[in-house]
Amino acid sequence: MACQLLNGKKGIIFGALDSKSIAWKIAERAYEQGAAFTLSNTPVALRFGEINLLSEKCHAEIIPADATSVSDLEHVFSRTMEIFGGKIDFVLHSIGMSMNVRKGREYDDLDYDYFLKTIDVSAVSFHKMLQVAKKMDAINEWGSILALTYIAAQRTLVGYNDMADAKSLLESIARSFGYIYGREKNVRINTISQSPTRTTAGGAIKGMEGLIDFTDRMSPLGNATADECADFSVVLFSDLSRKVTMQNIYHDGGFSSMAMSLKAMTQYNKSLDEDS
Amino acid sequence: MACQLLNGKKGIIFGALDSKSIAWKIAERAYEQGAAFTLSNTPVALRFGEINLLSEKCHAEIIPADATSVSDLEHVFSRTMEIFGGKIDFVLHSIGMSMNVRKGREYDDLDYDYFLKTIDVSAVSFHKMLQVAKKMDAINEWGSILALTYIAAQRTLVGYNDMADAKSLLESIARSFGYIYGREKNVRINTISQSPTRTTAGGAIKGMEGLIDFTDRMSPLGNATADECADFSVVLFSDLSRKVTMQNIYHDGGFSSMAMSLKAMTQYNKSLDEDS
Amino acid sequence: MACQLLNGKKGIIFGALDSKSIAWKIAERAYEQGAAFTLSNTPVALRFGEINLLSEKCHAEIIPADATSVSDLEHVFSRTMEIFGGKIDFVLHSIGMSMNVRKGREYDDLDYDYFLKTIDVSAVSFHKMLQVAKKMDAINEWGSILALTYIAAQRTLVGYNDMADAKSLLESIARSFGYIYGREKNVRINTISQSPTRTTAGGAIKGMEGLIDFTDRMSPLGNATADECADFSVVLFSDLSRKVTMQNIYHDGGFSSMAMSLKAMTQYNKSLDEDS
Amino acid sequence: MACQLLNGKKGIIFGALDSKSIAWKIAERAYEQGAAFTLSNTPVALRFGEINLLSEKCHAEIIPADATSVSDLEHVFSRTMEIFGGKIDFVLHSIGMSMNVRKGREYDDLDYDYFLKTIDVSAVSFHKMLQVAKKMDAINEWGSILALTYIAAQRTLVGYNDMADAKSLLESIARSFGYIYGREKNVRINTISQSPTRTTAGGAIKGMEGLIDFTDRMSPLGNATADECADFSVVLFSDLSRKVTMQNIYHDGGFSSMAMSLKAMTQYNKSLDEDS
Repeated sequence: MACQLLNGKKGIIFGALDSKSIAWKIAERAYEQGAAFTLSNTPVALRFGEINLLSEKCHAEIIPADATSVSDLEHVFSRTMEIFGGKIDFVLHSIGMSMNVRKGREYDDLDYDYFLKTIDVSAVSFHKMLQVAKKMDAINEWGSILALTYIAAQRTLVGYNDMADAKSLLESIARSFGYIYGREKNVRINTISQSPTRTTAGGAIKGMEGLIDFTDRMSPLGNATADECADFSVVLFSDLSRKVTMQNIYHDGGFSSMAMSLKAMTQYNKSLDEDS
Repeated sequence: MACQLLNGKKGIIFGALDSKSIAWKIAERAYEQGAAFTLSNTPVALRFGEINLLSEKCHAEIIPADATSVSDLEHVFSRTMEIFGGKIDFVLHSIGMSMNVRKGREYDDLDYDYFLKTIDVSAVSFHKMLQVAKKMDAINEWGSILALTYIAAQRTLVGYNDMADAKSLLESIARSFGYIYGREKNVRINTISQSPTRTTAGGAIKGMEGLIDFTDRMSPLGNATADECADFSVVLFSDLSRKVTMQNIYHDGGFSSMAMSLKAMTQYNKSLDEDS
Repeated sequence: MACQLLNGKKGIIFGALDSKSIAWKIAERAYEQGAAFTLSNTPVALRFGEINLLSEKCHAEIIPADATSVSDLEHVFSRTMEIFGGKIDFVLHSIGMSMNVRKGREYDDLDYDYFLKTIDVSAVSFHKMLQVAKKMDAINEWGSILALTYIAAQRTLVGYNDMADAKSLLESIARSFGYIYGREKNVRINTISQSPTRTTAGGAIKGMEGLIDFTDRMSPLGNATADECADFSVVLFSDLSRKVTMQNIYHDGGFSSMAMSLKAMTQYNKSLDEDS
Repeated sequence: MACQLLNGKKGIIFGALDSKSIAWKIAERAYEQGAAFTLSNTPVALRFGEINLLSEKCHAEIIPADATSVSDLEHVFSRTMEIFGGKIDFVLHSIGMSMNVRKGREYDDLDYDYFLKTIDVSAVSFHKMLQVAKKMDAINEWGSILALTYIAAQRTLVGYNDMADAKSLLESIARSFGYIYGREKNVRINTISQSPTRTTAGGAIKGMEGLIDFTDRMSPLGNATADECADFSVVLFSDLSRKVTMQNIYHDGGFSSMAMSLKAMTQYNKSLDEDS
């Protein structure tokens, strides 16, 4: 079976850092499915990352950009359109960073310059990307734009800090711009809310291991992997999901619809036995 | 301070069984706040319960009724209107029962007669109550109707079984009838989604203790008690919440908006240490 | 491109009536994508419908069944497994019927025998299907089960009547059983919440035309068609959505995330101009 | 009946501008219910507003502050604690402003300095308020903090522009900080999502009149007024809602749970008749 869901489709993938990145897996899968695309990340990330490997593997040009810079984004889109000789079909936003998390500032002791930076990098960058794309008329009719998010946008997790707020804002931007871009160009915008995933970026979140164990036992299908997220992302880029827009879809093995599973309860009860 | 939020208000309270019942606490609080009401429960429940104590304390007549019987419900409303010489202002629905839970039938081995009974007793009874009330024009303009529910309606909990589905249906009926009763008589209908509470009825749920420990550690304010639920129920019966309708409000110490707390994670991690 | 997402997959499609049915379109699309399946509907529906055309086109055997009958469902699954020589991979539930709607009984004047029938046919049938499948161990690991639903489960629509409650219950069953079937067999269960669609069954809903015009103007991408729903259903049956479970996904052109669009507001304002 | 739900409670009300402001009504109602408080708004707003009238009526000192300035907020809290001789019990945040809306910048043509200003003024100010209060230990145990929001945070409305994103962020901050403040000090944080209300600030939203007509016909109880919002806000400041936290509660006459009402559909259909 030579199933190529993205045959002939062109795009841009923002945020692939190394082979643990979800964006990296999505790039690999999109390539397998017939897509062509450029890769973009910050100059710093490019310096430390292994993205040249991905670039070679997928025959994808790397275009450095600070995603908070409108002019950098304009360059990414114009260079991409130049490479492909026209409009593109999909964009992935997989960008998030919190200096408050990095510097260990607790949520009730935020540095506000950092907070605004978190918001600018992790959420407003998505709006900038969309506004630039629309102004340049860079996306074909029925194109698909996707951002990665996390359930912290709806439910608080200890340690996720100001990234939770940034993800809420990101999802709101997806809806707000999804309306405009949909009505005018039939472009759809969605977010995937993925299980906690061991990435280099995610490694900064405090107490990640216990959380991953818990969510795995809570989710009837277990945590979703980055590879599985890539499979589902391809679907959202494909023509099979043309009328899905302004949605946040949980790709999490069922976690979001659980309040307590047998496995997690059994494990938790062990801790109570120990106490007694 | 002689604050009597329900001064002059009349109502019916369905489902008080004994002093652990949430409905019992609501009756006590409504009485303190100046309300007059009748009490109704099934003949069987009345035989085993201590409801006479409540009846005396609140000067409330007991009207036996099977809440799945339209004619029984008609009797409750007509007798109540007779006692109070006219229309009433509030109704509480605190009724739920699953034979599948009682008989230990797992959710993938349901008895369908039991399932339909769960649905009829725990959810359709609410519709019957509302339809009877509306046909008899028994509720004053801006009256308030309330049913108690649980987060299992949105997120699955091991062991809650077919009661989860019944609660979903109950909340849907609150919305559907809330629309009709609102537009025609300005009567509002809401549900309160309460923390897990140690009641005689709730005692049948498997593994209740571990769950209550978990939700208490997850909720920033701890589990809400039956007494606190009674306080908030009084608010929803009062004129201070006149424009709140068709809503399901979480009264749960914050549990519904949490994915993982420090306390619950710390406790859970102990179980992992033990494993290793 | 010979993309066959469902190559080698076997299933059962419940509820195809005629070429306007969403289930019919899903059958056609699943067939194109390489799936083999049986078709099931009630004996009455089979008599009036054109399902033989679909059967021939898709080389799919028709197995009559009343979906509220456990023994009928057992027959559908055993016959299907017999045909395919083993377990199957997907099931579609597209079944709904309200005698209250048909007989013009308003929501505040429901006939309760009809109401329980609505619930049994439109929601409990899904549980029966799942329980039968699980008891017979009829579904392969990572199989996918899907039911069609409507936003009335979350937000009230005039005229949708007791079907709204049935759809809420259906979605709850998808979550409740999704947990059990997921943890034990890695089978996933989801619902698609589709735009209002002109089907023969949907024709019974009062005031359908105005509503379809409104939702079309509200949805940035317009209402989703039955064909588009078929595309997305195929995705949920495929291996690309393996970790999506217990979810209700809106396939509605964005309607569910809109409160007011320019097009709908402009149209609505015309009615106000007329009034003045 | 001398019902004084807020007897002995002290607080701060941010955002009262003139007698049409929701914050103004809340101040009046809180005063009637026995509360004492200070009032705060920006120096500019104080110059143009009529807030001296409110100040006199409620015996409330006015403390000018730019709510985006941490030092200004520190002053508001310290001065308030000085006036009342100790900690306070409640805070209202009713602050929002978008230069993009004011300057007529469409959502796909945002000025990013304005956007970050919208976010800082309308959402991050709430975090600053909370962080300042917590660092100064200014709130009593079981205190209550409230912010006003709008359904645009969940569902897109034409013309609401970047305020929708700001409100999403505001609600996220309420959850994130609600967790921290709850677990450490039993302070609760909620938002009320109010019907569209004709305020001086709201007047800037494009096409407000048609929208208000539509939401009024959609809501079974009609739009909620500012006075009714004040009633419900008092409830959330009172001890009757002690275990409600991290919630967004719709105070909207039922609008949020409606997809289509008879009244709105009838009105809309007139516009279709006109077209034909």
